[in-house]
Amino acid sequence: MVGLGPGDDALIPPLAREALAASELVVGLEQYVERIRHLLRSGTRLSVPPLGSEVERAKEALAEARSGGSVALVSSGDAGVYAMASPALELAGEDVDVVIVPGITAAQAAASLLGSPLGHDHCSISLSDLLTPWVVIRERVRAAAEADFVLSLYNPRSKGRDWQLGKAREILLDHRSPDTPVGVVRDAYRAGQRVALTDLGSLRPEDVDMLTVVIVGSSQTEVRAGRMVTPRGYGV
Amino acid sequence: MVGLGPGDDALIPPLAREALAASELVVGLEQYVERIRHLLRSGTRLSVPPLGSEVERAKEALAEARSGGSVALVSSGDAGVYAMASPALELAGEDVDVVIVPGITAAQAAASLLGSPLGHDHCSISLSDLLTPWVVIRERVRAAAEADFVLSLYNPRSKGRDWQLGKAREILLDHRSPDTPVGVVRDAYRAGQRVALTDLGSLRPEDVDMLTVVIVGSSQTEVRAGRMVTPRGYGV
Repeated sequence: MVGLGPGDDALIPPLAREALAASELVVGLEQYVERIRHLLRSGTRLSVPPLGSEVERAKEALAEARSGGSVALVSSGDAGVYAMASPALELAGEDVDVVIVPGITAAQAAASLLGSPLGHDHCSISLSDLLTPWVVIRERVRAAAEADFVLSLYNPRSKGRDWQLGKAREILLDHRSPDTPVGVVRDAYRAGQRVALTDLGSLRPEDVDMLTVVIVGSSQTEVRAGRMVTPRGYGV
Repeated sequence: MVGLGPGDDALIPPLAREALAASELVVGLEQYVERIRHLLRSGTRLSVPPLGSEVERAKEALAEARSGGSVALVSSGDAGVYAMASPALELAGEDVDVVIVPGITAAQAAASLLGSPLGHDHCSISLSDLLTPWVVIRERVRAAAEADFVLSLYNPRSKGRDWQLGKAREILLDHRSPDTPVGVVRDAYRAGQRVALTDLGSLRPEDVDMLTVVIVGSSQTEVRAGRMVTPRGYGV
Protein backbone atom coordinates (compact mmCIF):
# COMPACT_ATOMS: atom_id res chain seq x y z
CA MET A 1 0.00 0.00 0.00
CA VAL A 2 1.84 3.03 -1.29
CA GLY A 3 0.94 6.68 -0.71
CA LEU A 4 2.20 8.90 -3.53
CA GLY A 5 1.93 12.21 -1.69
CA PRO A 6 0.30 15.32 -3.15
CA GLY A 7 1.37 15.10 -6.77
CA ASP A 8 5.02 15.99 -7.21
CA ASP A 9 7.65 13.26 -7.67
CA ALA A 10 9.92 15.28 -5.38
CA LEU A 11 7.66 14.39 -2.45
CA ILE A 12 7.73 10.62 -3.06
CA PRO A 13 10.24 9.09 -0.62
CA PRO A 14 12.67 6.31 -1.55
CA LEU A 15 10.70 3.67 0.38
CA ALA A 16 7.72 4.27 -1.92
CA ARG A 17 9.95 4.19 -5.02
CA GLU A 18 11.47 0.87 -3.93
CA ALA A 19 8.03 -0.61 -3.33
CA LEU A 20 6.84 0.51 -6.77
CA ALA A 21 9.97 -0.76 -8.50
CA ALA A 22 9.59 -4.16 -6.80
CA SER A 23 5.98 -4.65 -7.88
CA GLU A 24 4.82 -7.03 -10.58
CA LEU A 25 1.35 -5.44 -10.59
CA VAL A 26 0.27 -1.88 -9.78
CA VAL A 27 -3.40 -1.23 -8.96
CA GLY A 28 -4.82 2.28 -8.68
CA LEU A 29 -6.80 5.06 -10.27
CA GLU A 30 -5.57 5.98 -13.73
CA GLN A 31 -4.33 9.47 -12.79
CA TYR A 32 -2.14 8.03 -10.02
CA VAL A 33 -0.78 5.12 -12.04
CA GLU A 34 0.09 7.47 -14.91
CA ARG A 35 2.01 9.72 -12.51
CA ILE A 36 4.33 6.93 -11.39
CA ARG A 37 4.58 4.83 -14.55
CA HIS A 38 8.19 6.04 -15.03
CA LEU A 39 9.11 4.70 -11.57
CA LEU A 40 8.13 1.12 -12.52
CA ARG A 41 10.38 -1.50 -14.05
CA SER A 42 9.48 -2.56 -17.54
CA GLY A 43 7.01 -5.40 -17.70
CA THR A 44 5.07 -4.33 -14.63
CA ARG A 45 1.38 -4.94 -15.20
CA LEU A 46 -1.06 -2.07 -14.58
CA SER A 47 -4.65 -2.23 -13.43
CA VAL A 48 -6.74 0.95 -13.43
CA PRO A 49 -10.27 0.23 -12.24
CA PRO A 50 -12.73 3.18 -12.37
CA LEU A 51 -13.30 5.77 -9.61
CA GLY A 52 -15.48 4.54 -6.76
CA SER A 53 -14.34 0.94 -7.08
CA GLU A 54 -12.31 0.86 -3.84
CA VAL A 55 -13.45 -2.63 -2.84
CA GLU A 56 -12.76 -4.04 -6.32
CA ARG A 57 -9.28 -2.47 -6.36
CA ALA A 58 -8.51 -3.89 -2.92
CA LYS A 59 -9.78 -7.35 -3.91
CA GLU A 60 -7.72 -7.40 -7.09
CA ALA A 61 -4.55 -6.43 -5.23
CA LEU A 62 -5.17 -9.01 -2.50
CA ALA A 63 -5.85 -11.75 -5.05
CA GLU A 64 -2.48 -11.06 -6.68
CA ALA A 65 -0.74 -11.14 -3.30
CA ARG A 66 -2.48 -14.40 -2.33
CA SER A 67 -1.30 -16.00 -5.57
CA GLY A 68 2.28 -15.19 -4.59
CA GLY A 69 2.71 -11.98 -6.57
CA SER A 70 4.11 -8.65 -5.47
CA VAL A 71 1.56 -5.87 -5.90
CA ALA A 72 1.43 -2.15 -5.14
CA LEU A 73 -1.96 -0.68 -4.32
CA VAL A 74 -1.48 3.06 -4.80
CA SER A 75 -3.27 6.07 -3.34
CA SER A 76 -2.52 9.77 -3.45
CA GLY A 77 -1.42 11.35 -0.18
CA ASP A 78 -0.88 8.85 2.63
CA ALA A 79 -2.22 5.34 1.93
CA GLY A 80 -3.56 5.23 5.48
CA VAL A 81 -5.48 8.54 5.50
CA TYR A 82 -8.92 8.42 3.78
CA ALA A 83 -7.31 6.15 1.22
CA MET A 84 -6.86 2.52 0.15
CA ALA A 85 -5.23 0.95 3.21
CA SER A 86 -8.45 0.67 5.23
CA PRO A 87 -10.62 -1.04 2.60
CA ALA A 88 -7.74 -3.38 1.78
CA LEU A 89 -6.99 -4.27 5.42
CA GLU A 90 -10.67 -4.90 6.06
CA LEU A 91 -10.42 -7.67 3.47
CA ALA A 92 -6.87 -8.94 4.08
CA GLY A 93 -6.28 -11.94 6.30
CA GLU A 94 -3.18 -13.20 8.02
CA ASP A 95 -2.30 -15.00 4.79
CA VAL A 96 -1.33 -11.72 3.09
CA ASP A 97 1.92 -9.94 3.86
CA VAL A 98 1.15 -6.20 3.91
CA VAL A 99 3.52 -3.23 4.10
CA ILE A 100 2.08 0.28 4.33
CA VAL A 101 4.38 3.00 2.98
CA PRO A 102 3.33 6.35 4.44
CA GLY A 103 3.22 9.51 2.31
CA ILE A 104 2.59 13.25 2.62
CA THR A 105 -1.15 13.79 3.15
CA ALA A 106 -3.20 16.53 1.48
CA ALA A 107 -3.48 18.46 4.77
CA GLN A 108 0.29 18.52 5.24
CA ALA A 109 0.89 19.52 1.64
CA ALA A 110 -1.62 22.36 1.94
CA ALA A 111 -0.25 23.41 5.33
CA SER A 112 3.33 23.64 4.04
CA LEU A 113 2.20 26.06 1.31
CA LEU A 114 0.24 28.21 3.76
CA GLY A 115 2.85 28.46 6.55
CA SER A 116 2.50 26.33 9.70
CA PRO A 117 -1.21 26.15 10.48
CA LEU A 118 -0.80 22.63 11.96
CA GLY A 119 1.80 23.74 14.52
CA HIS A 120 -0.46 22.82 17.44
CA ASP A 121 -3.35 20.39 18.06
CA HIS A 122 -5.35 19.73 14.91
CA CYS A 123 -7.87 17.38 13.37
CA SER A 124 -8.83 16.10 9.95
CA ILE A 125 -12.50 15.76 9.04
CA SER A 126 -13.96 14.60 5.73
CA LEU A 127 -17.13 16.51 4.87
CA SER A 128 -18.30 13.73 2.56
CA ASP A 129 -21.51 12.18 3.85
CA LEU A 130 -21.51 9.40 1.26
CA LEU A 131 -20.27 6.80 3.77
CA THR A 132 -20.69 8.66 7.08
CA PRO A 133 -23.97 10.12 8.41
CA TRP A 134 -24.01 13.93 8.36
CA VAL A 135 -24.93 14.01 12.07
CA VAL A 136 -21.60 12.32 12.90
CA ILE A 137 -19.65 14.78 10.74
CA ARG A 138 -21.57 17.78 12.12
CA GLU A 139 -20.87 16.78 15.72
CA ARG A 140 -17.18 16.39 14.90
CA VAL A 141 -17.03 19.88 13.43
CA ARG A 142 -18.85 21.20 16.50
CA ALA A 143 -16.54 19.36 18.93
CA ALA A 144 -13.43 20.55 17.08
CA ALA A 145 -14.75 24.12 17.05
CA GLU A 146 -15.56 24.09 20.76
CA ALA A 147 -12.24 22.55 21.78
CA ASP A 148 -10.24 24.99 19.64
CA PHE A 149 -8.61 22.51 17.26
CA VAL A 150 -7.20 23.60 13.91
CA LEU A 151 -9.35 21.79 11.32
CA SER A 152 -8.28 20.31 7.97
CA LEU A 153 -11.41 19.70 5.90
CA TYR A 154 -11.08 16.93 3.31
CA ASN A 155 -13.64 16.46 0.50
CA PRO A 156 -15.08 19.87 1.39
CA ARG A 157 -17.41 20.22 -1.59
CA SER A 158 -18.34 18.59 -4.89
CA LYS A 159 -21.03 19.10 -7.51
CA GLY A 160 -23.29 16.64 -5.76
CA ARG A 161 -22.46 17.78 -2.20
CA ASP A 162 -22.60 21.55 -2.20
CA TRP A 163 -24.06 22.55 1.21
CA GLN A 164 -21.86 20.77 3.78
CA LEU A 165 -19.03 23.32 3.77
CA GLY A 166 -21.49 26.19 4.32
CA LYS A 167 -23.00 24.32 7.27
CA ALA A 168 -19.56 23.60 8.71
CA ARG A 169 -18.70 27.30 8.40
CA GLU A 170 -21.89 28.24 10.30
CA ILE A 171 -21.04 25.83 13.12
CA LEU A 172 -17.48 27.17 13.29
CA LEU A 173 -18.74 30.77 13.42
CA ASP A 174 -20.81 29.87 16.51
CA HIS A 175 -17.52 29.27 18.35
CA ARG A 176 -14.81 31.17 16.53
CA SER A 177 -14.27 34.76 15.36
CA PRO A 178 -15.02 35.70 11.72
CA ASP A 179 -11.38 36.90 11.65
CA THR A 180 -10.10 33.34 12.12
CA PRO A 181 -7.57 32.64 9.34
CA VAL A 182 -8.61 30.07 6.74
CA GLY A 183 -6.33 28.59 4.09
CA VAL A 184 -7.75 27.26 0.82
CA VAL A 185 -5.36 25.14 -1.25
CA ARG A 186 -6.17 23.48 -4.58
CA ASP A 187 -3.91 21.10 -6.50
CA ALA A 188 -1.00 21.39 -4.04
CA TYR A 189 2.38 20.68 -5.68
CA ARG A 190 0.70 20.14 -9.06
CA ALA A 191 0.35 22.23 -12.19
CA GLY A 192 -2.28 24.87 -11.53
CA GLN A 193 -1.64 24.98 -7.78
CA ARG A 194 -3.70 27.68 -6.04
CA VAL A 195 -3.07 28.91 -2.51
CA ALA A 196 -5.41 31.45 -0.93
CA LEU A 197 -5.60 32.91 2.54
CA THR A 198 -8.94 34.26 3.74
CA ASP A 199 -10.91 34.23 7.01
CA LEU A 200 -13.93 32.40 8.32
CA GLY A 201 -16.24 35.37 7.77
CA SER A 202 -15.15 35.78 4.14
CA LEU A 203 -14.84 32.10 3.12
CA ARG A 204 -17.00 31.46 0.07
CA PRO A 205 -17.93 27.78 -0.28
CA GLU A 206 -18.54 28.29 -4.01
CA ASP A 207 -14.78 28.89 -4.46
CA VAL A 208 -14.06 25.38 -3.14
CA ASP A 209 -14.24 22.05 -4.96
CA MET A 210 -13.27 18.43 -4.40
CA LEU A 211 -9.61 19.03 -5.32
CA THR A 212 -9.32 21.58 -2.50
CA VAL A 213 -8.31 21.25 1.14
CA VAL A 214 -9.57 23.90 3.57
CA ILE A 215 -7.62 24.57 6.77
CA VAL A 216 -9.39 26.56 9.49
CA GLY A 217 -7.21 28.08 12.20
CA SER A 218 -7.74 27.85 15.97
CA SER A 219 -8.28 30.89 18.20
CA GLN A 220 -4.47 31.16 18.38
CA THR A 221 -3.76 31.04 14.64
CA GLU A 222 -2.49 34.29 13.14
CA VAL A 223 -1.39 35.64 9.78
CA ARG A 224 2.20 36.87 9.94
CA ALA A 225 3.90 38.31 6.87
CA GLY A 226 1.28 36.63 4.68
CA ARG A 227 1.75 33.22 6.30
CA MET A 228 -0.76 31.25 8.40
CA VAL A 229 0.87 30.38 11.73
CA THR A 230 -0.45 28.43 14.71
CA PRO A 231 1.95 28.98 17.61
CA ARG A 232 3.20 25.92 19.48
CA GLY A 233 2.27 27.30 22.84
CA TYR A 234 -0.34 29.45 24.46
CA GLY A 235 2.32 31.88 25.59
CA VAL A 236 2.04 30.76 29.21
CA MET B 1 12.30 24.40 7.13
CA VAL B 2 12.86 20.73 6.47
CA GLY B 3 11.02 17.82 8.09
CA LEU B 4 13.17 14.67 8.19
CA GLY B 5 10.36 12.18 8.81
CA PRO B 6 10.47 9.49 11.48
CA GLY B 7 14.09 8.45 11.32
CA ASP B 8 14.83 6.36 8.25
CA ASP B 9 16.56 7.91 5.23
CA ALA B 10 14.16 5.93 3.04
CA LEU B 11 11.34 8.20 4.20
CA ILE B 12 13.09 11.48 3.34
CA PRO B 13 11.69 12.70 -0.01
CA PRO B 14 13.85 14.23 -2.76
CA LEU B 15 12.55 17.77 -2.05
CA ALA B 16 14.03 17.57 1.45
CA ARG B 17 17.31 16.17 0.12
CA GLU B 18 17.57 18.99 -2.41
CA ALA B 19 16.92 21.58 0.29
CA LEU B 20 19.58 20.06 2.54
CA ALA B 21 22.12 19.79 -0.28
CA ALA B 22 21.53 23.44 -1.21
CA SER B 23 22.11 24.76 2.33
CA GLU B 24 25.20 26.62 3.47
CA LEU B 25 24.13 26.27 7.12
CA VAL B 26 22.07 23.55 8.82
CA VAL B 27 20.51 24.32 12.22
CA GLY B 28 18.92 21.62 14.36
CA LEU B 29 19.20 19.30 17.32
CA GLU B 30 22.34 17.18 17.24
CA GLN B 31 20.56 13.85 16.74
CA TYR B 32 18.79 15.19 13.63
CA VAL B 33 21.81 16.91 12.14
CA GLU B 34 23.90 13.74 12.63
CA ARG B 35 21.26 11.71 10.80
CA ILE B 36 21.45 13.80 7.64
CA ARG B 37 25.13 14.82 7.65
CA HIS B 38 25.80 12.47 4.70
CA LEU B 39 23.13 14.29 2.66
CA LEU B 40 24.97 17.63 2.92
CA ARG B 41 27.60 18.94 0.53
CA SER B 42 31.08 19.32 1.95
CA GLY B 43 31.70 22.66 3.59
CA THR B 44 28.16 23.05 4.93
CA ARG B 45 28.32 24.62 8.38
CA LEU B 46 26.41 22.92 11.21
CA SER B 47 24.79 24.50 14.25
CA VAL B 48 23.46 22.22 16.98
CA PRO B 49 22.00 24.29 19.82
CA PRO B 50 20.77 22.33 22.86
CA LEU B 51 17.28 20.83 23.40
CA GLY B 52 14.64 23.37 24.40
CA SER B 53 16.26 26.24 22.51
CA GLU B 54 13.58 26.50 19.78
CA VAL B 55 13.57 30.29 19.73
CA GLU B 56 17.39 30.48 19.58
CA ARG B 57 17.49 27.95 16.75
CA ALA B 58 14.85 29.89 14.82
CA LYS B 59 16.66 33.18 15.38
CA GLU B 60 19.97 31.79 14.22
CA ALA B 61 18.46 30.38 11.04
CA LEU B 62 16.62 33.63 10.29
CA ALA B 63 19.76 35.70 10.86
CA GLU B 64 21.61 33.60 8.28
CA ALA B 65 18.76 33.97 5.79
CA ARG B 66 18.59 37.75 6.35
CA SER B 67 22.29 38.01 5.64
CA GLY B 68 21.70 36.40 2.27
CA GLY B 69 22.63 32.84 3.17
CA SER B 70 20.79 29.62 2.43
CA VAL B 71 19.91 27.78 5.63
CA ALA B 72 18.01 24.60 6.50
CA LEU B 73 16.23 24.54 9.85
CA VAL B 74 15.59 20.86 10.47
CA SER B 75 12.97 19.03 12.53
CA SER B 76 12.04 15.39 12.78
CA GLY B 77 8.66 14.42 11.35
CA ASP B 78 6.92 17.25 9.53
CA ALA B 79 8.46 20.70 10.08
CA GLY B 80 4.94 22.13 10.41
CA VAL B 81 3.58 19.71 13.04
CA TYR B 82 4.67 20.45 16.65
CA ALA B 83 8.04 21.39 15.21
CA MET B 84 10.24 24.30 14.14
CA ALA B 85 8.13 25.99 11.45
CA SER B 86 5.81 27.79 13.89
CA PRO B 87 8.46 29.36 16.15
CA ALA B 88 10.43 30.39 13.05
CA LEU B 89 7.44 31.88 11.22
CA GLU B 90 6.42 33.78 14.34
CA LEU B 91 9.77 35.57 14.06
CA ALA B 92 10.18 35.78 10.27
CA GLY B 93 9.13 38.89 8.40
CA GLU B 94 8.42 39.49 4.74
CA ASP B 95 12.14 40.04 4.26
CA VAL B 96 12.87 36.31 4.61
CA ASP B 97 12.11 33.86 1.82
CA VAL B 98 10.79 30.69 3.49
CA VAL B 99 10.07 27.29 1.99
CA ILE B 100 8.52 24.58 4.16
CA VAL B 101 9.29 21.04 3.02
CA PRO B 102 6.72 18.66 4.50
CA GLY B 103 7.69 15.27 5.94
CA ILE B 104 6.11 12.13 7.39
CA THR B 105 4.84 12.94 10.91
CA ALA B 106 5.20 10.66 13.91
CA ALA B 107 1.49 9.82 13.86
CA GLN B 108 1.63 8.69 10.22
CA ALA B 109 4.78 6.68 10.80
CA ALA B 110 3.20 4.95 13.80
CA ALA B 111 -0.07 4.41 11.93
CA SER B 112 1.65 2.75 8.98
CA LEU B 113 3.25 0.21 11.31
CA LEU B 114 -0.04 -0.52 13.09
CA GLY B 115 -2.28 -0.87 10.02
CA SER B 116 -4.62 1.96 9.03
CA PRO B 117 -5.90 3.52 12.25
CA LEU B 118 -6.11 6.98 10.60
CA GLY B 119 -8.42 5.79 7.81
CA HIS B 120 -11.23 8.08 8.99
CA ASP B 121 -11.53 11.37 10.92
CA HIS B 122 -8.71 11.81 13.41
CA CYS B 123 -6.94 14.36 15.54
CA SER B 124 -3.49 14.97 16.97
CA ILE B 125 -3.14 16.20 20.56
CA SER B 126 0.08 16.88 22.44
CA LEU B 127 -0.23 15.90 26.10
CA SER B 128 2.61 18.22 27.06
CA ASP B 129 1.37 20.99 29.35
CA LEU B 130 4.67 22.86 29.29
CA LEU B 131 3.33 25.49 26.85
CA THR B 132 -0.41 24.77 26.90
CA PRO B 133 -2.64 24.80 30.01
CA TRP B 134 -3.80 21.32 31.02
CA VAL B 135 -7.45 22.46 30.98
CA VAL B 136 -7.15 23.18 27.22
CA ILE B 137 -5.59 19.76 26.58
CA ARG B 138 -8.13 17.97 28.78
CA GLU B 139 -11.07 19.58 26.97
CA ARG B 140 -9.58 18.57 23.61
CA VAL B 141 -9.27 14.96 24.74
CA ARG B 142 -12.86 15.09 26.01
CA ALA B 143 -14.17 16.67 22.78
CA ALA B 144 -12.32 14.15 20.62
CA ALA B 145 -13.61 11.28 22.76
CA GLU B 146 -17.22 12.49 22.60
CA ALA B 147 -17.14 13.11 18.85
CA ASP B 148 -15.59 9.71 18.12
CA PHE B 149 -12.31 10.87 16.58
CA VAL B 150 -9.29 8.59 16.36
CA LEU B 151 -6.64 10.26 18.57
CA SER B 152 -2.87 10.44 18.02
CA LEU B 153 -1.26 11.45 21.30
CA TYR B 154 2.09 13.22 20.92
CA ASN B 155 4.44 13.75 23.90
CA PRO B 156 2.29 11.31 25.88
CA ARG B 157 4.59 10.95 28.89
CA SER B 158 8.03 11.89 30.17
CA LYS B 159 9.89 11.62 33.45
CA GLY B 160 8.65 15.02 34.51
CA ARG B 161 5.11 14.62 33.16
CA ASP B 162 3.91 11.21 34.26
CA TRP B 163 0.17 11.61 35.02
CA GLN B 164 -1.32 13.21 31.87
CA LEU B 165 -1.67 9.98 29.86
CA GLY B 166 -3.48 8.26 32.75
CA LYS B 167 -5.90 11.21 32.96
CA ALA B 168 -6.44 11.15 29.20
CA ARG B 169 -7.18 7.41 29.41
CA GLU B 170 -9.76 8.05 32.17
CA ILE B 171 -11.52 10.69 30.06
CA LEU B 172 -11.51 8.40 27.03
CA LEU B 173 -12.97 5.53 29.08
CA ASP B 174 -15.91 7.78 30.03
CA HIS B 175 -16.91 7.76 26.36
CA ARG B 176 -15.37 4.71 24.75
CA SER B 177 -15.33 0.98 25.44
CA PRO B 178 -12.35 -0.59 27.27
CA ASP B 179 -12.06 -2.84 24.19
CA THR B 180 -11.16 0.15 21.97
CA PRO B 181 -7.93 -0.71 20.12
CA VAL B 182 -4.85 1.30 21.09
CA GLY B 183 -1.53 1.27 19.24
CA VAL B 184 1.70 2.11 21.04
CA VAL B 185 4.70 2.77 18.79
CA ARG B 186 8.19 3.70 19.97
CA ASP B 187 11.10 4.68 17.71
CA ALA B 188 9.20 4.13 14.46
CA TYR B 189 11.51 3.31 11.53
CA ARG B 190 14.56 3.46 13.81
CA ALA B 191 16.76 0.86 15.43
CA GLY B 192 14.90 -0.56 18.40
CA GLN B 193 11.45 0.10 16.90
CA ARG B 194 8.64 -1.28 19.09
CA VAL B 195 5.05 -1.71 17.92
CA ALA B 196 2.40 -2.90 20.35
CA LEU B 197 -1.33 -3.30 20.04
CA THR B 198 -3.42 -3.18 23.19
CA ASP B 199 -6.79 -1.72 24.22
CA LEU B 200 -7.94 1.24 26.26
CA GLY B 201 -8.74 -0.90 29.31
CA SER B 202 -5.29 -2.52 29.29
CA LEU B 203 -3.14 0.49 28.32
CA ARG B 204 -0.43 0.97 30.96
CA PRO B 205 0.89 4.55 30.97
CA GLU B 206 4.11 3.33 32.60
CA ASP B 207 4.96 1.47 29.36
CA VAL B 208 4.96 4.79 27.46
CA ASP B 209 7.69 7.43 27.23
CA MET B 210 8.45 10.59 25.27
CA LEU B 211 9.73 8.66 22.22
CA THR B 212 6.34 6.96 21.90
CA VAL B 213 3.20 7.87 19.98
CA VAL B 214 -0.11 6.46 21.23
CA ILE B 215 -2.99 6.04 18.76
CA VAL B 216 -6.45 5.46 20.25
CA GLY B 217 -9.10 4.08 17.92
CA SER B 218 -12.64 5.40 17.41
CA SER B 219 -15.78 3.34 18.14
CA GLN B 220 -15.41 1.94 14.60
CA THR B 221 -11.75 0.89 14.84
CA GLU B 222 -11.15 -2.87 14.85
CA VAL B 223 -8.26 -5.28 14.98
CA ARG B 224 -8.21 -7.52 11.89
CA ALA B 225 -5.52 -10.15 11.44
CA GLY B 226 -3.36 -8.34 13.99
CA ARG B 227 -3.72 -4.95 12.31
CA MET B 228 -5.48 -1.83 13.64
CA VAL B 229 -8.07 -0.70 11.07
CA THR B 230 -10.45 2.26 11.07
CA PRO B 231 -12.94 1.73 8.24
CA ARG B 232 -13.51 4.61 5.83
CA GLY B 233 -17.26 4.47 6.20
CA TYR B 234 -19.86 3.71 8.79
CA GLY B 235 -21.23 0.92 6.61
CA VAL B 236 -24.35 2.94 5.75
